[in-house]
Amino acid sequence: MSRLYIVGFGAGNYEGMTIAAERAISESSLIVGYTVYAELMKKYFPEKRYEVTAMTKERDRVILALERAQNETVSLICSGDSGIYGMAGLALELAENYPEVDIEIVPGVTAAVSGAAVLGAPLTHDFAVISLSDLLTPWEKIEKRLMLAAEADFTVVLYNPSSKNRADYLARACDIMLRHKSPVTVCGYVKNIGRDGEESHILTLSELRDTPVDMFTTVFVGNSETKAIGGRMVTPRGYRNV
Amino acid sequence: MSRLYIVGFGAGNYEGMTIAAERAISESSLIVGYTVYAELMKKYFPEKRYEVTAMTKERDRVILALERAQNETVSLICSGDSGIYGMAGLALELAENYPEVDIEIVPGVTAAVSGAAVLGAPLTHDFAVISLSDLLTPWEKIEKRLMLAAEADFTVVLYNPSSKNRADYLARACDIMLRHKSPVTVCGYVKNIGRDGEESHILTLSELRDTPVDMFTTVFVGNSETKAIGGRMVTPRGYRNV
Repeated sequence: MSRLYIVGFGAGNYEGMTIAAERAISESSLIVGYTVYAELMKKYFPEKRYEVTAMTKERDRVILALERAQNETVSLICSGDSGIYGMAGLALELAENYPEVDIEIVPGVTAAVSGAAVLGAPLTHDFAVISLSDLLTPWEKIEKRLMLAAEADFTVVLYNPSSKNRADYLARACDIMLRHKSPVTVCGYVKNIGRDGEESHILTLSELRDTPVDMFTTVFVGNSETKAIGGRMVTPRGYRNV
Repeated sequence: MSRLYIVGFGAGNYEGMTIAAERAISESSLIVGYTVYAELMKKYFPEKRYEVTAMTKERDRVILALERAQNETVSLICSGDSGIYGMAGLALELAENYPEVDIEIVPGVTAAVSGAAVLGAPLTHDFAVISLSDLLTPWEKIEKRLMLAAEADFTVVLYNPSSKNRADYLARACDIMLRHKSPVTVCGYVKNIGRDGEESHILTLSELRDTPVDMFTTVFVGNSETKAIGGRMVTPRGYRNV
């Protein structure tokens, strides 16, 4: 039986990896991943072999990892978690053609969790995670989720809030949430979590609407109880003061 | 300046901790936590001093940690992440009275993420996390969130699905979601994630409705695209086949 680890390595700093992720990569002779993430891991595991594919080539990347795992131990690396918008699902789908490859999914700290820790504690209560990328999801579906998540008073975490071709998507998402959330809702965003150039900001939902962010940014929109305390974004545990 | 780490240690196995969490606890002379979690950490850090409080005494626990952190380095430990239904928020609120204590929040792998990896890849697309505990949240608010999350076709992760006094809450939650989700929606649950006695099951939403679970269980209700593949719960990345 050969082994393929699908590894979520967290935000990208060495300390943000789990001990299991560190061990899985150490055990592997080959690391397969998107170019930028392979560069991050080369700093910590310079002695490994790497094979990289371009950002949108997830299917090719997974097939490459499965092929190689027939002959050696391979880690297919994902930033954050290996499941949340990651490649674990695709690997399990495609693995049906590689019955001799044993797949182990190694979870990691996703950007909702690592970004929350940078901002304070915005996710102490119920929340929803929504990607604004409409590459694989119709925009109408994303809009419906934003609307209902706002109506449900979830704290909302937005992944992929922007890209070259979607410069106005965050503004559109904020406009939809503003139908149910107050313009003074406490929000925050974190850029380059755990990496060089990390920065975070706390602002209101109406300010967020007019703030340009890039694709390396994770956005947090508070619930009706979220507060700014000492420069941190904090959602209380519940609605009764205990 | 003295230091208080609010540490999420993941599911409870040593490998599930981040390297940062391992270092924070190693650096601390005192570990403060709920009795059961302190017992888990004693296995890995037997040389530390521990002070424990009962499960519902979060406020006392945080104040104890802040008091002690005035004189030594302290880790306040939480299972999973330190923010998600954790104590980071309460610590930031109460820290206003302890300006000389420097607080560092160390994120961890929350049960939604570690449980998902056990089941397969149920969180490849947008999802919502909802606690069924009505200790601090009115049940009507929980019901509304369940209903809207189901209508939005989120994969839904349920924390605290049951307790002695809330034996029928999971059934009630399923009934609400069944108004918008099909009875054959693929669901899963994981008990004792990463600990002795870990077990996982995949079943339909209508079967889940009639399944008793305990408070150490995390429940996953798929979206309309979630499938069972080779005994694993897998949500595709999007709605177009790419």
